[in-house]
Amino acid sequence: MDDGDTADDIMDATYRALCTHGYADLTMQDIADESDKSKAALHYHYDSKHDLLCAFLEYLYDGFVDRIEDPAGETPHERLLSLIDSVLDKPDDGSEEFGTAILEIRAHAPYEPGFRERLTKFDDYLVDELEVILEDGIADGTFKSDLDADETAQFIVTVLTGAATERVTTGRPVKCTRRMLTEYVETHLLDGQQEVTA
Amino acid sequence: MDDGDTADDIMDATYRALCTHGYADLTMQDIADESDKSKAALHYHYDSKHDLLCAFLEYLYDGFVDRIEDPAGETPHERLLSLIDSVLDKPDDGSEEFGTAILEIRAHAPYEPGFRERLTKFDDYLVDELEVILEDGIADGTFKSDLDADETAQFIVTVLTGAATERVTTGRPVKCTRRMLTEYVETHLLDGQQEVTA
Repeated sequence: MDDGDTADDIMDATYRALCTHGYADLTMQDIADESDKSKAALHYHYDSKHDLLCAFLEYLYDGFVDRIEDPAGETPHERLLSLIDSVLDKPDDGSEEFGTAILEIRAHAPYEPGFRERLTKFDDYLVDELEVILEDGIADGTFKSDLDADETAQFIVTVLTGAATERVTTGRPVKCTRRMLTEYVETHLLDGQQEVTA
Repeated sequence: MDDGDTADDIMDATYRALCTHGYADLTMQDIADESDKSKAALHYHYDSKHDLLCAFLEYLYDGFVDRIEDPAGETPHERLLSLIDSVLDKPDDGSEEFGTAILEIRAHAPYEPGFRERLTKFDDYLVDELEVILEDGIADGTFKSDLDADETAQFIVTVLTGAATERVTTGRPVKCTRRMLTEYVETHLLDGQQEVTA
């Protein structure tokens, strides 16, 4: 087993341990119990739980990028809706528990610069991806020409973050958010004058 | 000192203790240390930290209702923007630490039905307040007649929740959210045909 496999095994074990124990009570032993490694072996690879969790956030980030890059669809409009769906639909089993653990980690970000830095990367990446699609759509006349692509992208990320927080906090399903975001895209971003000006 | 004053003192001490220690590490002793009561006196009023924190969420809820009910403004449009501002602008000193503690409590909601029930009340109240303003504005022609007041209110709450989460997680200030929500209200909710149809 090379180091890549070992790292993946530890990351998988961390995922399961977070789903089972949450973030606040998580110990290196809990992670070891979910893997075929000893606690000592974990400490060989990661100095501390903090280092392991920073590596885990990077591992999640790589998965997030794989999942949302190049969204399905032919047009900027379709690609925008695909991207929104990819973020709203969590792909994993046990995603409720995992979403909860991630919100705990988010709440800990002010105390842990290593967490904040990595969590910010998720938001920045998502803003950038949305911005590219919006700019493509402005250029080809799909979206309104006076749209501020950067601020609109940040606004959509805020909505998606709110939906994820509400899912954990109140258990509210995301389907209302999906419907309202779709409506926002269709009536607020799409260039209604397209046919007139074409 | 009557029981009301005692309860208020304990709530104030809980606020300070949460700002200082966060939620995860908070003990009854930390709260006692911020008050002029002993830990035993706190246990006389509240059986457990969980009970005290449920009472604290109810205390916050009362303050939230006082703060956002009857927002300033003559028209539904002005009242809607005032209400959004009241939620985005945190009134308290130490609000960054407090916002963090509240997000920790939110992340704990799935494990604590008492928390979830009380946190849901905040969102429900805010949705109801927004809905009343939206309905007033639909009735008087301020807002588009085909607006779904309930879903629009929920969408705005999702945006406000997202802004609060981002402030904790990435430190992003709320001013972009304020600008985009204002634009959303003006170009998406306001009835642009008002003068034509009036």
